Parts: sequence; C-alpha cells; structure tokens
Amino acid sequence: MAKKKICVIATGGTIASRPTENGLMPALTGEDILDLVPEIRALADVSCAQLLQLDSSNLLPQHWQSMARTIAVAIGQYDGFIVTHGTDTMAYSSAALWYMLQHVPCPVVFTGSQLPAGVPGSDAEQNLLTAFHAVLSGRPGVYLAFGGRILFGNSARKLCTRQLAAFGTIQKPEAGTYAGGRLVWNVPAVKPAGKFRLRDQLDTKVGVLKLVPGLPPKMLKLFVDEGFHALIVEGYGMGGIPDQESPLDFLPTLAYARDNGCLIVCTTQCVYDGADLDHYEMGVRAQRLGVIPGGDLCTEALLPRLMLLLAETRDAAYIRGQLAKER
Amino acid sequence: MAKKKICVIATGGTIASRPTENGLMPALTGEDILDLVPEIRALADVSCAQLLQLDSSNLLPQHWQSMARTIAVAIGQYDGFIVTHGTDTMAYSSAALWYMLQHVPCPVVFTGSQLPAGVPGSDAEQNLLTAFHAVLSGRPGVYLAFGGRILFGNSARKLCTRQLAAFGTIQKPEAGTYAGGRLVWNVPAVKPAGKFRLRDQLDTKVGVLKLVPGLPPKMLKLFVDEGFHALIVEGYGMGGIPDQESPLDFLPTLAYARDNGCLIVCTTQCVYDGADLDHYEMGVRAQRLGVIPGGDLCTEALLPRLMLLLAETRDAAYIRGQLAKER
Repeated sequence: MAKKKICVIATGGTIASRPTENGLMPALTGEDILDLVPEIRALADVSCAQLLQLDSSNLLPQHWQSMARTIAVAIGQYDGFIVTHGTDTMAYSSAALWYMLQHVPCPVVFTGSQLPAGVPGSDAEQNLLTAFHAVLSGRPGVYLAFGGRILFGNSARKLCTRQLAAFGTIQKPEAGTYAGGRLVWNVPAVKPAGKFRLRDQLDTKVGVLKLVPGLPPKMLKLFVDEGFHALIVEGYGMGGIPDQESPLDFLPTLAYARDNGCLIVCTTQCVYDGADLDHYEMGVRAQRLGVIPGGDLCTEALLPRLMLLLAETRDAAYIRGQLAKER
Repeated sequence: MAKKKICVIATGGTIASRPTENGLMPALTGEDILDLVPEIRALADVSCAQLLQLDSSNLLPQHWQSMARTIAVAIGQYDGFIVTHGTDTMAYSSAALWYMLQHVPCPVVFTGSQLPAGVPGSDAEQNLLTAFHAVLSGRPGVYLAFGGRILFGNSARKLCTRQLAAFGTIQKPEAGTYAGGRLVWNVPAVKPAGKFRLRDQLDTKVGVLKLVPGLPPKMLKLFVDEGFHALIVEGYGMGGIPDQESPLDFLPTLAYARDNGCLIVCTTQCVYDGADLDHYEMGVRAQRLGVIPGGDLCTEALLPRLMLLLAETRDAAYIRGQLAKER
C-alpha cells in the first residue's frame, strides 16, 4: 500500500525555537523539525510548507485565514494536514480552523511542544507522533494533539504553562489518546455532514472583557465606543454580571451596548461546566437586555465563531440561534 | 472544656439562596443556614453577623473592607471566623482578606455552596462542616473550604460552574482535606510572623485585561487613559504579549503605560504553573519596558494584592520587589 501523503504546515512556536540571549525564538523550519523524528518519514510521504515563523502570541486572525486557505487549496492532494504551532494561542487557532474548514473531509491536526524540538526531554517527538498517527487514522475533523491527548479543535484550552500535558478539553470528551505507540479514539467518528466549504471571511471587531470585582462598567462601554461588533464578557460562575451597587451596576451599559450595535456574549471565567444565564436572577436580567449566552463554548472557540458569524450578519437573533446550536 | 466561640459572617450567595420566578436570589440569613445543620451548634458556641445579602457577582472591594474590618474589631472575642459567601467571587474575597488581615492570629475560613442550603443534594452542609472543623483546629490563617478541600486563601480559583468540588488550588498545595468527618492538614501550620495588623486601605484603580488574538493595543491604552494605576494583563502561556505585526504590537503601548503611571503586571491566562517573563524573547522585551512579572499569583490574588500595595505607594520598583517575594 502506498504511504499516505501528509502536508505539514509549519508556523513557528516553541517546537521550532532555539535559545538566544534574549530567550527562546522560533528558528527551525518544518523540515528541520521532521529531521529530528526520522520515524515520521517512514510512516508517511511528508511535504512541508513553511507558512509562518512566529511565537504564537503574535498570531492574528489574518493568520487563521492564511492557514485555512492554505489547507483549502491543497485538500484533495493530501490525505491530511498537520499544523505545527506555538502552544500559546494554539487552542484559538484550532478553534478558528474548526469553524473555517466547514465539513473538512480529512484530518487536520494541530500540534507543538512545551520544550523546543531536539532539546533533551522535549515533548516534540511524542506530540508529532501523536499528530501523525491521528492523521494517518484518516478520521476527518480539526483536532489538537498534545501530551498524549487528542482534543476536538473547538474545545481545547492551554491549562498549564510548564507541564507537558498542557492542554485540557472544555465541555467535550477527549477525542482520543496516544500512549505506548498506540492511538485510541474515545468517541465514534462523525462523517462530514455536507460538502467541504472554506469560510474565510472574518469580522475581527470582537473583543473579550474579563470581569473582576470593582471593574467599572465604563470599560465595557469603551469597547462599544471603539466600534466592536461583539464583546465576549467572561462573567463570574454561571455567567454573573454585576447588576447592583450603582455606579458599578452593568445593566445600563448592557442596554447601551445593545442600542449601539455591540452584541454582548456572556461566558464564564471558570474553566469547566460552561455558563448558564437562566440559573440566577442576574443572568435572567442580563438576557432581557439582549445578552447572548455563550453556553458551552470556551472563549477560545467563541472568538473565531463570532468573527465568522459577524462576517455573515450582525443580526442578534440569528447569532443567538447559531450559538445555541453549539451546546 | 468550654466550646470554642466561632463567629459566622454571612454575606449571601447561593448557600443563602431561594428560588424565585427570576432564578435564584439570596434570602436566607446566617442563622437560617446554621439551623439546617444542627450538628454545628453542638460543635461550637456560634454567633452570626449578617454583613451582606448579595449574589457575590455584586461584591466589590469595599465589601472586602467591610469583612476585614468586621473581623479585625472582633478578633480576641472569638476563636475563629467563618465567612459564608457566594462562590462566584469567593476566591477574590479570600485572597483580599489573606492580605488585609496581616498576621491574623486565628482561623478565618470562607465557605459557601454550589446548591442552596436545604435543597436535596446540597453541598452546603458538608462545606459548613469542613469550614467549622478547619476553624476548630485553631490553625491561624485565611482559608477557603469547599468540596472537601481546604485551600490557602490567596491561591484558590473557582474552576467549575456546576461540579460540587468547584475550587482548585493554583500554584500551592491544598492546605488540607475533609472527608468522612475527618479533617487532615496536608502542610505544617505556620505561626503568624508578626503582630496582627488590619490593612484596609485599597486603591481600587486596578483593572484586568485578557489578551486574545486580534485585540488592539488601544484597549490597553484606554485603561491607562481612564486613570488606572495598575493593569493586570492576562497574557498567553508564560506571559506572552504580542510584540510584532504592527499595528497590533503592544510594545509602544506598554511604554505609554509606563510613561503615564500605569503599572502593567503580566500574568498568564493559563490556569496552572504561573507566568515567567524571562523564558521567551517577548517577555524579556516587555520587562525592559517596565512590565512587572505577576509570578505565581493568580489574578484573584494579584488584584487585591495590587490594590493594597498601590494604597501605600505607586513606586514600581517597590511593587515589583513585593510581588517577587510572593513566588
């Protein structure tokens, strides 16, 4: 049987980094990284595309577009794609591509490492092998492979800055695991529900505001005044937003946002279990002022999801309905 | 032996809530809650003070002052204090009192519940018993008792919106556990290092900004222009702040903040392992522009810590030194 054709799209990150006098900086190419894991070229017919060479803290929505477009034009020529990526914003990128590569017919797997490829004890080799085995399995979809876990692209979060098992899954099961050289999928495969479509138009006027005690509602107003079309508010617990103790009551500012065309989407600053604006009085009051529940989506997924939706329409009822389907 | 005298300070929260047609609202007093756990009055001589009756999403720094002052004036009259509190901002309040009640000579234990006291399956009874046993142990310090765990007051975070074991510890071990009616401390007791002192002056001009891909540096500038004295930036991973891809390079805005008297304190948006601005090039560059590493402190602790420090001085070198001691 012919070896599968895999395209590795390299974007920089710690996996590609080398020490400098100012700290780690991306330097290795995708080819350099693959040369460190000879086993991979035995597993597959691998091509490399060096798309970016960035610390992923510098990644922007325009880079999600580059990645998605690069994959979209090459679909059909490859059996699957691996994106090597810095860990810092990998969960944002994997969520973006989850939504941008609609009904993707092949595997697209993000990976990277906490320690640079080639340094002693690096997790790069294991993570690359995990990603390759996930791609070779042929299961369509966008995933993030890291620390022995394969996570759905739109429900990953970087939980740890140092530990090698750095990513956790938010509100979904782990899709699979890789240990002892063996890949196990934990959930059944789902076939694409339609024809592949690249959705690459983004409205980047989406912000995030995390609430903390004493934060004046004025800071939310400033996002509205800056022309943001949507603001993800990381509220407390189930999605609590202060509604008493004037002048720190947010309700008048929520009404101001609604009246000025800025959608407020409320999620939680907790890690697990999602938001639920029907549970407490303040969530009910916020919804009456047009606040849209973020539901089970984490901020990493809400951000690109909203950027795509807003590029289609700014209709609040439509966007509310689309987000409700994500639960 | 005479029963110990314990003061319960009730502030509202889910533990005190009752269903209404608009969702849960605080309604029960501290006495009502204690009546539901008769065992407690057998354990201790309990007094109740009803300080607040709030959903803790509405709690403000001024309420931390009320709690700290209430405890400070009563110290010596009681063997310890329990603060019943909503879960949503409990970790912020426990951190605030950790710093405000300097060298506290007795136990001060926060607790609450995910389900209202008195409803079937509520965690209120177990959490109250955990808190009481922690106080009765006599170990001085500010703690948060929840879901069978006793956490240090300045290193707790609400991780789960629904699960009963809702709080986790950030960058410190769990102080103790409570299971099967038995309290176990996991770490040795530490005696207060000095005489008790109430530190109740807060400079509340401290904000938080979580970075997400595409966020314009202008949003950071707006905190500076609003007169914030410090801004906690939740960067990526080890504390990454974008330093390329003009106009979304934050470095000029970091210099602007420094030149306009707003301290930028950088922490991580990850949950575990803290920030380290010496590790990557961008962290090194940010520090050259005056950015202060938040180190191991989570946002919940950095916020009140900075409010206290700024009430003493706005000297950046002093504040940097004090935060470095927290690691």
